[in-house]
Amino acid sequence: MVPRYSRPAMTAIWQSENRFRIWWDIEVFAAEAMGEIGMIPAEDAARIVEAHRRGLINPVDVPAIDAIEAVTKHDVIAFLTWIGERLGPEKRYLHQGMTSSDVLDTALAVQLTQAADILLADLDELLKVLERRAFEHKLTPTIGRSHGIHAEPVTFGLKLAQAHAEFARNKARLEAARADIATCAISGAVGTFANIDPRVEEHVAARLGLTPEPTSTQVIPRDRHAMFFATLGVIASSIERLATEVRHLQRTEVLEAEEYFSPGQKGSSAMPHKRNPVLTENLTGLARLVRSAVVPALENVALWHERDISHSSVERFIGPDATITLDFALARLTGVIDKLLVYPERMQKNLDRMGGLVHSQRVLLALTQAGLSREDSYALVQRNAMKVWESDGRLSLLDLLKADTDVAAALSPEQLEASFDLHYHFKHIDTIFRRVFGRA
Amino acid sequence: MVPRYSRPAMTAIWQSENRFRIWWDIEVFAAEAMGEIGMIPAEDAARIVEAHRRGLINPVDVPAIDAIEAVTKHDVIAFLTWIGERLGPEKRYLHQGMTSSDVLDTALAVQLTQAADILLADLDELLKVLERRAFEHKLTPTIGRSHGIHAEPVTFGLKLAQAHAEFARNKARLEAARADIATCAISGAVGTFANIDPRVEEHVAARLGLTPEPTSTQVIPRDRHAMFFATLGVIASSIERLATEVRHLQRTEVLEAEEYFSPGQKGSSAMPHKRNPVLTENLTGLARLVRSAVVPALENVALWHERDISHSSVERFIGPDATITLDFALARLTGVIDKLLVYPERMQKNLDRMGGLVHSQRVLLALTQAGLSREDSYALVQRNAMKVWESDGRLSLLDLLKADTDVAAALSPEQLEASFDLHYHFKHIDTIFRRVFGRA
Amino acid sequence: MVPRYSRPAMTAIWQSENRFRIWWDIEVFAAEAMGEIGMIPAEDAARIVEAHRRGLINPVDVPAIDAIEAVTKHDVIAFLTWIGERLGPEKRYLHQGMTSSDVLDTALAVQLTQAADILLADLDELLKVLERRAFEHKLTPTIGRSHGIHAEPVTFGLKLAQAHAEFARNKARLEAARADIATCAISGAVGTFANIDPRVEEHVAARLGLTPEPTSTQVIPRDRHAMFFATLGVIASSIERLATEVRHLQRTEVLEAEEYFSPGQKGSSAMPHKRNPVLTENLTGLARLVRSAVVPALENVALWHERDISHSSVERFIGPDATITLDFALARLTGVIDKLLVYPERMQKNLDRMGGLVHSQRVLLALTQAGLSREDSYALVQRNAMKVWESDGRLSLLDLLKADTDVAAALSPEQLEASFDLHYHFKHIDTIFRRVFGRA
Amino acid sequence: MVPRYSRPAMTAIWQSENRFRIWWDIEVFAAEAMGEIGMIPAEDAARIVEAHRRGLINPVDVPAIDAIEAVTKHDVIAFLTWIGERLGPEKRYLHQGMTSSDVLDTALAVQLTQAADILLADLDELLKVLERRAFEHKLTPTIGRSHGIHAEPVTFGLKLAQAHAEFARNKARLEAARADIATCAISGAVGTFANIDPRVEEHVAARLGLTPEPTSTQVIPRDRHAMFFATLGVIASSIERLATEVRHLQRTEVLEAEEYFSPGQKGSSAMPHKRNPVLTENLTGLARLVRSAVVPALENVALWHERDISHSSVERFIGPDATITLDFALARLTGVIDKLLVYPERMQKNLDRMGGLVHSQRVLLALTQAGLSREDSYALVQRNAMKVWESDGRLSLLDLLKADTDVAAALSPEQLEASFDLHYHFKHIDTIFRRVFGRA
Repeated sequence: MVPRYSRPAMTAIWQSENRFRIWWDIEVFAAEAMGEIGMIPAEDAARIVEAHRRGLINPVDVPAIDAIEAVTKHDVIAFLTWIGERLGPEKRYLHQGMTSSDVLDTALAVQLTQAADILLADLDELLKVLERRAFEHKLTPTIGRSHGIHAEPVTFGLKLAQAHAEFARNKARLEAARADIATCAISGAVGTFANIDPRVEEHVAARLGLTPEPTSTQVIPRDRHAMFFATLGVIASSIERLATEVRHLQRTEVLEAEEYFSPGQKGSSAMPHKRNPVLTENLTGLARLVRSAVVPALENVALWHERDISHSSVERFIGPDATITLDFALARLTGVIDKLLVYPERMQKNLDRMGGLVHSQRVLLALTQAGLSREDSYALVQRNAMKVWESDGRLSLLDLLKADTDVAAALSPEQLEASFDLHYHFKHIDTIFRRVFGRA
Repeated sequence: MVPRYSRPAMTAIWQSENRFRIWWDIEVFAAEAMGEIGMIPAEDAARIVEAHRRGLINPVDVPAIDAIEAVTKHDVIAFLTWIGERLGPEKRYLHQGMTSSDVLDTALAVQLTQAADILLADLDELLKVLERRAFEHKLTPTIGRSHGIHAEPVTFGLKLAQAHAEFARNKARLEAARADIATCAISGAVGTFANIDPRVEEHVAARLGLTPEPTSTQVIPRDRHAMFFATLGVIASSIERLATEVRHLQRTEVLEAEEYFSPGQKGSSAMPHKRNPVLTENLTGLARLVRSAVVPALENVALWHERDISHSSVERFIGPDATITLDFALARLTGVIDKLLVYPERMQKNLDRMGGLVHSQRVLLALTQAGLSREDSYALVQRNAMKVWESDGRLSLLDLLKADTDVAAALSPEQLEASFDLHYHFKHIDTIFRRVFGRA
Repeated sequence: MVPRYSRPAMTAIWQSENRFRIWWDIEVFAAEAMGEIGMIPAEDAARIVEAHRRGLINPVDVPAIDAIEAVTKHDVIAFLTWIGERLGPEKRYLHQGMTSSDVLDTALAVQLTQAADILLADLDELLKVLERRAFEHKLTPTIGRSHGIHAEPVTFGLKLAQAHAEFARNKARLEAARADIATCAISGAVGTFANIDPRVEEHVAARLGLTPEPTSTQVIPRDRHAMFFATLGVIASSIERLATEVRHLQRTEVLEAEEYFSPGQKGSSAMPHKRNPVLTENLTGLARLVRSAVVPALENVALWHERDISHSSVERFIGPDATITLDFALARLTGVIDKLLVYPERMQKNLDRMGGLVHSQRVLLALTQAGLSREDSYALVQRNAMKVWESDGRLSLLDLLKADTDVAAALSPEQLEASFDLHYHFKHIDTIFRRVFGRA
Repeated sequence: MVPRYSRPAMTAIWQSENRFRIWWDIEVFAAEAMGEIGMIPAEDAARIVEAHRRGLINPVDVPAIDAIEAVTKHDVIAFLTWIGERLGPEKRYLHQGMTSSDVLDTALAVQLTQAADILLADLDELLKVLERRAFEHKLTPTIGRSHGIHAEPVTFGLKLAQAHAEFARNKARLEAARADIATCAISGAVGTFANIDPRVEEHVAARLGLTPEPTSTQVIPRDRHAMFFATLGVIASSIERLATEVRHLQRTEVLEAEEYFSPGQKGSSAMPHKRNPVLTENLTGLARLVRSAVVPALENVALWHERDISHSSVERFIGPDATITLDFALARLTGVIDKLLVYPERMQKNLDRMGGLVHSQRVLLALTQAGLSREDSYALVQRNAMKVWESDGRLSLLDLLKADTDVAAALSPEQLEASFDLHYHFKHIDTIFRRVFGRA
């Protein structure tokens, strides 16, 4: 975790205090279940539950627990020891029949669902902002580019609608990935429930808002986590895509949009052109980082037999790093889009800089529809298009075509002008917006 | 694609003939829609549809199309030229208002759904075999191992049930990933439907069993494909996990199971122990390969603006390679599990090799339940366990405990024996099987 | 391997015929050594060597060997059987004391060195072209861009010199990687030379131009191959970098350079602006592919004990794919640079489009050197720079500064003009060229 | 960075204090050079150098600098401001003509070389320990395994010698990678030295023990860093390999070696067999993490034009994470090997468990050398080998062969015993050791 790329709520999930709180919840809910089914005395269970209700562990004394761990070399035992000091004899019924992994893996599931919830909220924010700005620029014309080369007109709102559709897909994927890791395992040393009743697992799962893991092997199977981190990697790639779009639009020669830059922002005025898209460049880098969690998460799946512990160190890194970084990146991207400076005049200017060549395809179509052969139509457009091209946009294709007697014989000035009508391209924007937003 | 790691049905999906057939379907269904909505004359559309019905392109003359492409340097134009030679004047209405990507990307979607369907069938086969063998060995005792070290007893069927649960999850993931890439885009040069009605897209989608892409940008957005390949990577990792389990079980010192080896298989008898788990080792390598598609697929997402073509070369490799290899790997794994030689006697022998130390945890529990303190219980077990350990399994923990007067004071021989009862560990196997299979 | 991204010489390395030839070389050189040291009768060794000299296996009948393998299920045995049919009784001395891996791994080393040699030659070609074009444009002014935003002037030749320096580094890395995999192992079943004298290995190594592997374990250790493929991944990333530069320069709004486009090239004239940088986009994709070999190659290192065979399937893919694709990509990049259309006028026009703002830094410096405080200098530059910026490049910073009396009080018109002199920026280009090329 | 997987010396490299110290060195050495060549007044340069000599910035007040950065939003400016407060008017000559990247990138080069030096020392420690233990067990017989199956005898020392050879290669690679990133760039905003003399760069490089970057583009080209992190990835994979070997050897059924476990270590005695190879499992996970830096480092290479800042966030993570984790892992591995508990008796027992089948290959050879046909020899060995195999190691192959009259007709008991002589396999161990260690 790098502090400058983190936000407090997500960071808090990964701090010791939160982890210990979840452990305590798990132990208490397990005791509660054991009391109910008679695995432990009901009154001892009640005492434990009551201690929980009273907020026994508030505040969690992390240094004290760490000090115990420094001696016991075992984090769960350290925690239980510290808790035990705060309880009466009922403490002996804590953790009965359970193994450390029951606590550790279920707690990780809770942390990952908490993280997923923040990320889902981040996505909601981003989707909201994308929607607002998409509608704002629903009909702002701008050139569509394939291969970085002018192709045909689109609207800036359409670009944002496309991003919205992409992040809406990502949200659905993350919801699936969240469900995938939201399981609870309290199944003992090798997953057989030898010393613990499966009903305990079911109860703890219900209390934590998790699903009981159908079958665990001391650990929750890591294909779940692999799927989770792979999904984060896909989301990160979508972030990179939108960030790259902004970076392109902000290039000096394009300058159709810019990351927000407050008028008084220091350091830029002597070189007022030097407004660098540093936020979106940063997002490009952060996307690489989030993606870098995918391969180790995949490599974590093939644990040996009922479990080995090789996954643990990996998760200590990628658990916090991938979620904290993605949270930060989503929020940063939301901010970038929210305040993005959009320059419709420049978009129009760029649209026009080819002297209307972007409409040549439509003229071609109009000529063939007017009865000319494809070859003749092509020749007519070509000879005028080349002149425009060679003029570097100073000549206008429309003017030249009107003045070309062969063209004029086939198409009236009105017909030609119609071929240069931007709104021809936008007639289905509403259809697309309805598909994406359910409204236009 | 490496022939030795491929199967014909999946390979056929990626051959030119199949691609051309799909292109033809797309063009015909598009013409059909255009005829219906009046974009092109109904009778020309009907002629095209009729040609399709008659099987116009059977068989596809791939070399002829390739020869045209060698001249035109454009695959879709080459195909349309070849088709055009087989049609009357209605040929001019083919591909009207469409761009190559409309055909290429929708065809890729069809190929990937075809591939997904094969993979889903592969998973069904694997699940069936896992279920059969899981029930066969539902109560075959074997040692559960954490860290490669004996832990507590499980059953061999439980291991297979766990694999079943994992591959059932993978099936659900693949179904989601299939839905993610099963979209149809017929939206023109920059996705605005400038020259083509969105109803064409809807019709083609319906005819191909796809969903209309809500909004495309000449291309179908690559986050869909990234998710697809990421999912294949997760499945591959699960394959590696099960393959690794078999490799471990087949080790000379463990030998609890073996890849099938026909009695007459040559080359092994002089070294009868030298039956190498080459299939599962191979699967481990193939898993690495399928996973290697994930990162480039993620890197493909951030295309520039409305599209660049950098994704294309990547997909020419990973499209066939990842699906063909995964199909092969799933089938190979199914074969391995189907015919896996399982040695229950050896499993029992390994279970016993520690002289009963795997039951020490339960004895400890029994002693504390009999009223001894945790410390005293521990000391009693420890002094006997160490003797067993030092004997390298020649002494029996049960015998020593019975002979230990302090232990005998707390637990009767029957109680001690109960602690060594394997079936204590298996009492919830039915519960787990019901969770996994819906039956026990 | 995808045929369209392959070249014949590199492809031939990975074809069966080449592999069999190398196997034959290895067997013969081993027999030669065994004859010399008396492991096998000298006259039999001589017969084998003579058969080799006579070109016994020309041409290699690949289908015949494949047919034998279909029966024996073992490639090396199939090959030896086929060879045996062409030899007299001396055939029994072939492969004496050797294991298949001795042949397979040493042959792979030969193939990889052959591949490396082609790649090194590719790099030489690329370096030559980069050098020629760097000198051609040594003093062609163009704007340097940080963050995609105009920064300060550079020359186009400098950009190419920087690429040259990068690929020269890559060449040195590849030479090191080639040395890393150029080893020969003839050490028997577990690398102990139990049944074969180490002198055989030394002899075969010398004859093949390899180094004897100091210690192998049936197989050559895979850290060597991992380093090789990691190095290819770095080279691929450098290709992506230069390809990305070209893609940026070819953008419609920038258009400072273009991939070669023959005047008569069809399909472009109606949309003459639509010259897409498809080669460099393709290179971007190919770079992703070559890189995708790195992770599986790294995962191949940790083979179990003296060897498992999981690496083999991986190498059947990445061996050919990574080298063939990189060879193709290097050649394509060389062609792109060789014929790159460079537009100095456009470069100058882009340089000028900011009205001289790119020189603001130098004016600032000149003012402080003239004795003004940093703050005052900044304010003076700023108030003029903002006017230029707001004019969208129509006003000239130089003109405004000359007309600014406060500025004029500090700097004469000549001094101001000197601050706008492009050649100020190029005074050390010769130094850099000498560092990169050893000459200027 | 995860504290539990870090060591102080490596961590210190990445702390702010070290970074600021290096920045200060760079600024001072640059001023020194500027003074010498007359870019700035010699006496001001001398004052700066003297301040450096006097230890001006000791101790670095990191919070103070951070507080300034919180305002200026620029780290280098914040540092210079803080430094400036400690200097007289000579402070205006600091950083003259330089850009932030000159400081940042050169400082990163210093940090990475410092990190490399620690890693090289780590490798030396590991090599020393591997050598000592290799010689200790040079002739300790153990079974060599291919595919996890017993193959032929090796010695435990040979295994360690092979690891030594691998890590010696890694050391050479790291030395090359260190040289690759040990460059100094002081070349100004776009690498043209427009406002700074190249001699400054040369001087700073020399003072820092770096090489001048032949040509930079504001930044040092990232292919260098990619190569560095790729090399760390290879080393990590070798760690995984050796760690996996230990994990295998410690398996309950194998138990030929164990991670050190102090006799009094608590928690193990009740289950004395439960000594888990947690250190090497942890190393397996850490290897995945170090490797995960490779892909983002490769993706960092293709910065746009003269630079974008996407690499920066990536390096803030992987710079510390990969080096700190690798340092920790190398030290942990060294500790594991240093104190590894090796059980020669168990190795011998495992060697013997197949009843001598591992020698069947040699008997086969002896029979053919005694004149029997390959087929007859095979049949003879086979019929005895199968009996041994079916007895699960209770019968001895040597005994059976002696008792087999057909075998006895060909080979005397002494000849048969010779075929079972372990030392036959070890006759070239000295050769191998000499190759690896230069001595035997």
